[in-house]
Amino acid sequence: MNYKIDNLQYCKWSREVFQINREAGLDAVHVTVVYHEDFDEFNSRVDEWNTYFKDNSDLIFLGKSYKDIEKAQKEKKTAIFFGFQNCSPIEDDIGLVEKVYDLGCRFMQLTYNNQSLLATGCFENVDSGVTNFGKEVIKEMNRLGIVIDMSHSAEKSTIDAINISQKPIAITHANPTFWHAAKRNKSDELLKILSQNEGMLGLSLYPHHLKDGTNCSIESFCEMTAKTAELMGAEKIGIGSDLCLNQPDTVVEWMRNGTWAKAKNFGEGTKKNSGFPKQPDWFIDARGFSNLESGLSKVGFSKNEISGILGDNWYNFYKRMN
Amino acid sequence: MNYKIDNLQYCKWSREVFQINREAGLDAVHVTVVYHEDFDEFNSRVDEWNTYFKDNSDLIFLGKSYKDIEKAQKEKKTAIFFGFQNCSPIEDDIGLVEKVYDLGCRFMQLTYNNQSLLATGCFENVDSGVTNFGKEVIKEMNRLGIVIDMSHSAEKSTIDAINISQKPIAITHANPTFWHAAKRNKSDELLKILSQNEGMLGLSLYPHHLKDGTNCSIESFCEMTAKTAELMGAEKIGIGSDLCLNQPDTVVEWMRNGTWAKAKNFGEGTKKNSGFPKQPDWFIDARGFSNLESGLSKVGFSKNEISGILGDNWYNFYKRMN
Repeated sequence: MNYKIDNLQYCKWSREVFQINREAGLDAVHVTVVYHEDFDEFNSRVDEWNTYFKDNSDLIFLGKSYKDIEKAQKEKKTAIFFGFQNCSPIEDDIGLVEKVYDLGCRFMQLTYNNQSLLATGCFENVDSGVTNFGKEVIKEMNRLGIVIDMSHSAEKSTIDAINISQKPIAITHANPTFWHAAKRNKSDELLKILSQNEGMLGLSLYPHHLKDGTNCSIESFCEMTAKTAELMGAEKIGIGSDLCLNQPDTVVEWMRNGTWAKAKNFGEGTKKNSGFPKQPDWFIDARGFSNLESGLSKVGFSKNEISGILGDNWYNFYKRMN
Repeated sequence: MNYKIDNLQYCKWSREVFQINREAGLDAVHVTVVYHEDFDEFNSRVDEWNTYFKDNSDLIFLGKSYKDIEKAQKEKKTAIFFGFQNCSPIEDDIGLVEKVYDLGCRFMQLTYNNQSLLATGCFENVDSGVTNFGKEVIKEMNRLGIVIDMSHSAEKSTIDAINISQKPIAITHANPTFWHAAKRNKSDELLKILSQNEGMLGLSLYPHHLKDGTNCSIESFCEMTAKTAELMGAEKIGIGSDLCLNQPDTVVEWMRNGTWAKAKNFGEGTKKNSGFPKQPDWFIDARGFSNLESGLSKVGFSKNEISGILGDNWYNFYKRMN
């Protein structure tokens, strides 16, 4: 197979970014379309994407199933899969789940950092797990084929989602806490439960999720990958870079604050260091996949395992979702 | 003083209902304007109310502060205070709190029965308390003068709200569980904390909150009131009848289900008994206040205490909120 998939990007989209992703050989990218937007605002984002698709039809097209990953590889394009980092587009309406699916949504986080109507985010003090409405929405996501993404959710909520969902779930962009104990990273226990239930972890290249941040070495990252593979199995690991290429700092501010507070929140950053953190030099953009390829080889992964981690595992996961 | 206040009604509003409330001598009613509506839909409800105010200006007007209760008594009208049974009109936007205040909102439940973005409702399995967004909203409600109403909230969330709020909060319509152990009723512990923090309890006349439901006797209700007064102090008790006069059963169905589930939920009812329950014959509508007056006298309340429970306590509470 040898697919290359980055299962989370939120770049400032442009022809240049789509070209970089093609240079990186990406057959598919799961893109964040929505953070805090409601249903109408999601519709506007879809309109923007339709313009991107029209203007860059030689580079990208909307992906709807694993077959579009195959098509993308054949046509040397990148299939774009829509995802939400919050459940705001479905508002409080179970009927909107099918509507966002029809408009292309294939991944939805049950929460961003705060409590949602569905579950608890990792920045809350208390985690009550999946709510009454959350259970209904999971059923509907299962029925339609929208992946439950718990990257930003708190632990009990994530374990609830794994248990309630009839299909495997994903943590599209996070790292293990054994390596770097960030709020957004995940415990050994959780990762084991995830993998036992056929779920996938997309390793993140976002500096706040990396040991030593911007100065994280590729050796350290790949050693972490090897240990994670011991925990979960190499076939349960992919990449979800969380790359925010070319985004201005106003965007990370909006990601953290949305409209929920009058005072400014700094999320994973600090008051002094509130902007987007600088990427490590071996993963400035998706072309860093080639560095990952050699780095993973050096820590002892087989060729097959590396193909798995860099895309085939996600491809297999997409295939099981349909 | 001798004000008469029903601090929760959700009737099918009509001139007939406003006349009944006047016959009952009500100087003020806290009316539910919104259950599951978002901000735009709340605006439509305000438009509807503006028509009621225009067409019935001899009977009702919009109340904005305790002074309007005084004015109502003088003019022999009923001041109508707007309230929400859910926080849906502020959506996920802290900026909307001031906007709903400007449009007349003076009470807002942090939750209906399910989890909201602010806190946990009493029909959820796990209660995580007031959320990050919830804390911000309470601050803003305090600043503006919107009462935090926890009638439908779970216990930890309610205690959190009492502790976080800089102003006393209210449970506008519920009864104690020591009398009738319904999910919606409140524990002794909670009622004590509420009263220690100058909060108010509005006793409910909704059959599902009453011992023996529709067949509840006025003696039983008034004995419960006496015991509650021992627990909280008679000056912390008022009436919030939860009267749904003339509403069709489709409305209770919508109250329970909103748009959060595909299957039907029966809330406090059952499949066999899913409609609005029949009111006890001593409180068919607000004219039952006169029955309460004599009933409370029979169980030993003083004239002053009865005036307090039937309205003056709420008046004093409104006065403290401004």
